[in-house]
Amino acid sequence: MKIALDAMGGDNAPQSCIGGAFEYVNAVGTQAAEVLLVGDEPWLRELAARHSDPLGKISFYHAPDLVEMSDKPTKILRTKPESSLVKAVELVKDNRVDAVISAGNTGALLTAGLLLLGKIPGIKRPALSAYIPAYKGSFILCDAGANTDVKPQTLVQFALMAGAYLEVLEGISNPRTGLLNIGSEASKGNELTIAAYPLMEVHVPNFVGNIEARYILDGNVDVVVCDGFVGNNVLKFIEGVMMHMVNWFEEIIRSRPNSADLLERMGPTLSQMNRTLDYEEHGATPLLGVNKIVIKSHGSSTEKSIHTALLAAQKAYDQHLISEIAKRIADHVMED
Amino acid sequence: MKIALDAMGGDNAPQSCIGGAFEYVNAVGTQAAEVLLVGDEPWLRELAARHSDPLGKISFYHAPDLVEMSDKPTKILRTKPESSLVKAVELVKDNRVDAVISAGNTGALLTAGLLLLGKIPGIKRPALSAYIPAYKGSFILCDAGANTDVKPQTLVQFALMAGAYLEVLEGISNPRTGLLNIGSEASKGNELTIAAYPLMEVHVPNFVGNIEARYILDGNVDVVVCDGFVGNNVLKFIEGVMMHMVNWFEEIIRSRPNSADLLERMGPTLSQMNRTLDYEEHGATPLLGVNKIVIKSHGSSTEKSIHTALLAAQKAYDQHLISEIAKRIADHVMED
Repeated sequence: MKIALDAMGGDNAPQSCIGGAFEYVNAVGTQAAEVLLVGDEPWLRELAARHSDPLGKISFYHAPDLVEMSDKPTKILRTKPESSLVKAVELVKDNRVDAVISAGNTGALLTAGLLLLGKIPGIKRPALSAYIPAYKGSFILCDAGANTDVKPQTLVQFALMAGAYLEVLEGISNPRTGLLNIGSEASKGNELTIAAYPLMEVHVPNFVGNIEARYILDGNVDVVVCDGFVGNNVLKFIEGVMMHMVNWFEEIIRSRPNSADLLERMGPTLSQMNRTLDYEEHGATPLLGVNKIVIKSHGSSTEKSIHTALLAAQKAYDQHLISEIAKRIADHVMED
Repeated sequence: MKIALDAMGGDNAPQSCIGGAFEYVNAVGTQAAEVLLVGDEPWLRELAARHSDPLGKISFYHAPDLVEMSDKPTKILRTKPESSLVKAVELVKDNRVDAVISAGNTGALLTAGLLLLGKIPGIKRPALSAYIPAYKGSFILCDAGANTDVKPQTLVQFALMAGAYLEVLEGISNPRTGLLNIGSEASKGNELTIAAYPLMEVHVPNFVGNIEARYILDGNVDVVVCDGFVGNNVLKFIEGVMMHMVNWFEEIIRSRPNSADLLERMGPTLSQMNRTLDYEEHGATPLLGVNKIVIKSHGSSTEKSIHTALLAAQKAYDQHLISEIAKRIADHVMED
């Protein structure tokens, strides 16, 4: 297989992308996919010169322009047609590669993916998923922000897609799926979740019912389903609260007398928490519902993250993620 | 003035209510409001016998039945007409008292308040507010769970009501008000928040724009406005994450070698965090939009909390909370 990597996307690009691509091909060896580095070709070649590629897995594709984080996602095809992000997605569209990875502007990747590659048949709305780490067990939050206003049937599709993702890419069979809600009873919630609950019961294999926000970190569900407005709020709140708590801890300790050694001794604990909590560290997640493999790597991707994202793309291809999703969607057609 | 106290409501009732009421009247003295203890009169009188009330501020009103936490709020008038909660609200309706306080079933109090006391003229939907503590500054979350599906105009009223509450009860003039949203730009959000933004700009005095969930704990806003579905999720998530973090901290420390003394030395820090984070400790908040003073004290209210709630009710009465809200609502009439 062949993967297009948006080599200019992400805070540490293009170095992280170049490094990650070479790390991947050399680690995986003959079984590695070919990697097409998309971006400012002269610069990419210059940076690549210090790496070795004995199997000849790496090649280049020139795209002179760059999508910035401030670019309006919905207009990206019109404003940045020559960007590495748009070109990389086009390579999938033209069947020149089998998958695309970007650590760039998430909204732009979603728009380009959706407009150029289309949706899997039957999919109402593609979704973003986020991997949320917690010490008692991680989970997938879906939708994490792609769709602010959705129908109950769409929530069911989010559950099916996130379930397929976990089964195919993470090897979690029959993932436990909860509907984020303000009460555990089926009758609780807003119009959306009340209408979604009975549909989830019928269509989602291991639907465990409503889950309240206070319990989502307890490790009892693998997928938390919600609309993208709520999901994006939760995602950002997790980030905010966790930073807040760790900073606060340090501040209280500092304010206590004779605590210099205490802060030093707490150092490893704080580091361990920070590492676990950094959901971006874990993050190479597929755009769910787009009709080709599109992997979003986090904005602050390192070489290691890009390596991980390439492995994820290869696995998604080998394990037929798209047709697995398509199958589940076809098996669960709902009336509007 | 006279306050009806649902003496049977809350985890520690009636002891906490009795104790809190006597503590209040004795602390405030001649300026204290009269307190009518509503509940199982023989039991209340028996418990009250050990307290002294030299100014004769305390009296009793018999209500033989009890609202449980499991009772369906929407049916409470029909299922529990003789309960202390319903009777206490009726006393306000009949103008026999000026305010009511309960630490019981929040939904039941909201329903009884709304149905028996009505709404302030012009109010679309009454709201629950929650006081959220954070080390960088606390804020009021509104709506915290009363209304799962609302219109943009209703969000504006939540902002106006929460603002009046902070000005009147907490002495915060011109409170900074943010709209909880998934981006800072006016164009970001779901249909509800996008439509609400321009209305907030026109009608809310110190509207600071959208605020993302990751920043709400940073102390830059006094009021965070959202619908009750999102608000209740945020409220419960705060609770869950904070417990999670503190437990996790302890667990990591425990798992490290030679850490027995470390955990002991961290004890005061963990306690300080737990105390600050316990939003219920802070909580006596008015039901906003109901046409009389209805104060909800938290379910785990102690004597001190009931004392605080009585002070809040007295202040709400003295400072004319209801007419202050009515004035703001009348000044900001919006088309539907």
